[in-house]
Amino acid sequence: MSEVYAARRTRLRERSAAAGAEAALVSRPANVRYLCGAAPRGAVLLLGAADDLGDLLVCPQDPAEAAGGAELVRPDDALRLMSLSAADTDAAVAAVALAEGAGAASLAVEEHHLSVARHRTLRAAAPRLRLADLGCAVEQLRLVKDEEEISCLRIAAEIADQALGELLESILVGRTERHLALELERRLIDHGADGPALPTAVGCGPNAGRARHKPTDRRVEEGDFLCVCLGANYRGYRCEVGRTFVIGTTPADWQIELYELVFAAQRAGREALLPGAAYRDVDRAARHVLDAAGYGEGFGARTGHGVGLEIDEDPRLAPSAMGKLDACVPVTVEPGVHLPGRGGVRIDDTLVVRPEADGGPELLTITTKELLAL
Amino acid sequence: MSEVYAARRTRLRERSAAAGAEAALVSRPANVRYLCGAAPRGAVLLLGAADDLGDLLVCPQDPAEAAGGAELVRPDDALRLMSLSAADTDAAVAAVALAEGAGAASLAVEEHHLSVARHRTLRAAAPRLRLADLGCAVEQLRLVKDEEEISCLRIAAEIADQALGELLESILVGRTERHLALELERRLIDHGADGPALPTAVGCGPNAGRARHKPTDRRVEEGDFLCVCLGANYRGYRCEVGRTFVIGTTPADWQIELYELVFAAQRAGREALLPGAAYRDVDRAARHVLDAAGYGEGFGARTGHGVGLEIDEDPRLAPSAMGKLDACVPVTVEPGVHLPGRGGVRIDDTLVVRPEADGGPELLTITTKELLAL
Repeated sequence: MSEVYAARRTRLRERSAAAGAEAALVSRPANVRYLCGAAPRGAVLLLGAADDLGDLLVCPQDPAEAAGGAELVRPDDALRLMSLSAADTDAAVAAVALAEGAGAASLAVEEHHLSVARHRTLRAAAPRLRLADLGCAVEQLRLVKDEEEISCLRIAAEIADQALGELLESILVGRTERHLALELERRLIDHGADGPALPTAVGCGPNAGRARHKPTDRRVEEGDFLCVCLGANYRGYRCEVGRTFVIGTTPADWQIELYELVFAAQRAGREALLPGAAYRDVDRAARHVLDAAGYGEGFGARTGHGVGLEIDEDPRLAPSAMGKLDACVPVTVEPGVHLPGRGGVRIDDTLVVRPEADGGPELLTITTKELLAL
Repeated sequence: MSEVYAARRTRLRERSAAAGAEAALVSRPANVRYLCGAAPRGAVLLLGAADDLGDLLVCPQDPAEAAGGAELVRPDDALRLMSLSAADTDAAVAAVALAEGAGAASLAVEEHHLSVARHRTLRAAAPRLRLADLGCAVEQLRLVKDEEEISCLRIAAEIADQALGELLESILVGRTERHLALELERRLIDHGADGPALPTAVGCGPNAGRARHKPTDRRVEEGDFLCVCLGANYRGYRCEVGRTFVIGTTPADWQIELYELVFAAQRAGREALLPGAAYRDVDRAARHVLDAAGYGEGFGARTGHGVGLEIDEDPRLAPSAMGKLDACVPVTVEPGVHLPGRGGVRIDDTLVVRPEADGGPELLTITTKELLAL
């Protein structure tokens, strides 16, 4: 694997050089992980500051201690590790001082991640170094996934589907949202997840259909809608799946109608996922179905988002988003409707954009989307 | 409760005015929560921009939706709410535009929280407004807790003690670190926690004694040290407790010696907690015990830290920390030693600094610190 990370770092150095900065400092943890295979707590990555420095991961303390049982970065010919003695030291301060000492004139930093105060500290620590903006260069590299990354996402999706499937076989009436969420998280771990990909959302009755609902002590009752959204983190890669069920044997007419509407919106969004499709057009495909039925208001800001090393990353599938989908970009499609006081429906899949010649979008989360009465 | 929040906002406005900024923008979520009672996702608080604006909480969307079942901010005479229509909008951008429109000349912002890129966006959105630095003014206000806050911490500690106590009554040998951690988190919820205060750390055998150890699939074995660190979040207030046990009936001599050493260091740290004590002197009290026994190297950067709305907040009890303890400041005291390959010991309490006349430091986490063989 270390060649993969070395190749990613080479691409980043090329982009940074093309933008006029000879060296780059990566501080955002998910970006450090993408470029090194792991992100020890507080570690920053210094690239291209000097030939004899190589690519240098600066850690506030011994990475084995900082990882606390998590993945370790394996140093190799292309990546050196430096541990500072004190865990309270800002590794970025040490890194800019190194870059200046090595004779670098300019250093591109992640201005969307560094706070104004921390950036000022870096300037003071290396006054002769010109700090430039690396922008979202690493996030741009992360957008299109390689097959290794997609297979991690596929396993993460399988784990989430398994956890959800097992829950559906158990008795639900009378249990609280909180306990159902905890049980799902335990099952994710049982099936090999490193942890939940996002806070598990379980909402029943009037809470069903709310986006990112934080579970409460509300108990599941007969006749409720029950919405569940969960995801697994597998080797750092995160996916999500969301489903809505009816509790009891016969869904009410309004429940069937609302479910079919959201299902139609979600299908329209999924079918719009093709290489070259504008982000906003995918959003519009799903949104239009809800708008036409008069439910556009409550839908929320976007139809879906990218997933990968973070559960919510680029692209945004939203009305104002600029850009077009590429192949091998994994995204969620997750429209929903919430009716205050009555509850609602959300349906959420993770899919990978694929060309039509390859069969179109690859559905990672395969739990059925029939309206199940449990 | 709303008077409490109004009084806190008044104190902040006074500090901000004394520092020369007529208006302040609070963006850090824990700070927003401290000043309003809740922090809807993405909300920012605008204070003192104009008499007719009052104190204004600007939310990217309807706070009831954003809260997702969590606490709601209750608007009152002293606090108005404004919802923007789209959840993707940066509420801070809307707030600076409002402040400029209301005729404010300067606005103090949290430069330690805003990224360089976001700060630039704010400058562009309100070019006539001079942005100043609010610094850590809210964090300073948060340092000393009122009795209401301390009683939330006391309940959080009780919950953590209960969850830990129940775990100790169950069979441990053969279970994995991950499953023990999940069970502890379930028990926290059972006893009324809003969630864990921090990622639950469970380490056995060679993993015992590592700070913030991320649980693995290692199973508990006879003869192991078992280290557990957990905490409860109760109404937003977070505390932690950490204990080390021996698995089996007779601890080995080296285990007894190491435990007694860490216990002595932790006691020295606790006994140093008095109003007026320098942060670094509390650290030195604990550190000296380990240093004298030759274990100073592996101890880590600090003896403890403040707790409250965040699990890791000011003060830092560390060698380089500047400042002195006040009464009613809750802190952790958590020295530890980890011997690579063999494991180690950590003992962690949450206490509230109290004057000697009131009996000295108030121990919130009362689980026994005897070396239990389980």
